Amino acid sequence: MQKADLMYEGKAKKVYATTDENIVWIEYKNSATAFNGEKKATIDGKGRLNNEITSLLFSMLHEAGIENHFIEKKSQTEQLVKKVTIIPLEVVVRNVTAGSMAKRLGIDEGIALEQPIVEFYYKDDSLGDPLITEDHISLLKLATPVEVDVLKHLAQKVNVLLSEFFANRGLTLVDFKLEFGKTADGTIILADEVSPDTCRLWDKETNEKLDKDVFRRNLGSLTDAYEKILARIGGEQHV
Amino acid sequence: MQKADLMYEGKAKKVYATTDENIVWIEYKNSATAFNGEKKATIDGKGRLNNEITSLLFSMLHEAGIENHFIEKKSQTEQLVKKVTIIPLEVVVRNVTAGSMAKRLGIDEGIALEQPIVEFYYKDDSLGDPLITEDHISLLKLATPVEVDVLKHLAQKVNVLLSEFFANRGLTLVDFKLEFGKTADGTIILADEVSPDTCRLWDKETNEKLDKDVFRRNLGSLTDAYEKILARIGGEQHV
Repeated sequence: MQKADLMYEGKAKKVYATTDENIVWIEYKNSATAFNGEKKATIDGKGRLNNEITSLLFSMLHEAGIENHFIEKKSQTEQLVKKVTIIPLEVVVRNVTAGSMAKRLGIDEGIALEQPIVEFYYKDDSLGDPLITEDHISLLKLATPVEVDVLKHLAQKVNVLLSEFFANRGLTLVDFKLEFGKTADGTIILADEVSPDTCRLWDKETNEKLDKDVFRRNLGSLTDAYEKILARIGGEQHV
Repeated sequence: MQKADLMYEGKAKKVYATTDENIVWIEYKNSATAFNGEKKATIDGKGRLNNEITSLLFSMLHEAGIENHFIEKKSQTEQLVKKVTIIPLEVVVRNVTAGSMAKRLGIDEGIALEQPIVEFYYKDDSLGDPLITEDHISLLKLATPVEVDVLKHLAQKVNVLLSEFFANRGLTLVDFKLEFGKTADGTIILADEVSPDTCRLWDKETNEKLDKDVFRRNLGSLTDAYEKILARIGGEQHV
């Protein structure tokens, strides 16, 4: 199989067609963006780190029974994934208050939630990826009510798996964003990436932020933080 | 019973205590505000119109079985209502796309919805009255899940009644905002006001806007629009 034409370039990844129509070739870029693209930087090593981390996490999730688009890592910054049609929803799961939810509700960050909260955001940069309700999802025909239930169920299952996985490695999974896609036969599978770009991860002991908030809030070296994540999740895997 | 101390002054109303601890005295002001208070004006006659309209509508809703706080009109701009503790939620019901929902979702105004949509906004000026989900309502302890169901059920019932009432008077009820309160014994009843300040009302034939959008969007005389509403809903009542 060969890498073919560039199909799409996003903020963090390039997506190429391949000679197999069911497979696409992802290249993780070294760009960091935040606040809907208002803050931007090029950070050497970021593409490699996210490619490595997301490959490890997607493999773990696959083994735990969560069907996802990951096929194999091709190079330090590249991976092959199944071609899917992305559902234009950001499915956010929260275990601890932080980020946009804390801001929206006027509450402090760092409060553990009694129950995880699942939120849906409409993936539309021109609208600023707004929070939407299940009624809005139906109105926009982004997913049927049954599909919304599938998304919530899968997101909650991923949350249980990831939370435990990270907890065993000294990390609190504060919140994370998932994207799902549909395969040619209509099956909904986990897609996009799972990395410190899309998860808030705090050191369990110190609450040190080891995720994209380091970039958003100018807290130090982003790659140092991501290297720590990789060391903890890769390290354990090779014990 | 006597009017006593001013308890609270809002953007559109003053609330006074009375010598009866279970009753408060509302005075409708002539002020118009929009965009979370950014746009302001004094409009002679607005207080009288909203007081008259909301009195008529609360009486109609009471007769139709919707318990609400309205007791009686005291003067052109004043009414007595039961004292309740307001639940800090704006319960919005939409029949046709318009306003903040159309903007949020990037869709046109004026599209009739297949099913009415109920949304919750957190009543907090400093946060800009954000859209929130039922999980957020639980997290903030604004209402229990059972109470949220009660609010949705009541809002939908009010929608059926108001939509038919206005339709019979040549008006389309596009959307509206309700607030609810709890009486001393914990019963949830409809409160605040139901007026062209809180409802979008369009002429059924011409789609002429006869509500606060006239002020928000500088479409002409607000009191002319509200006089038309009063004439239509008062006129029919005295036939």
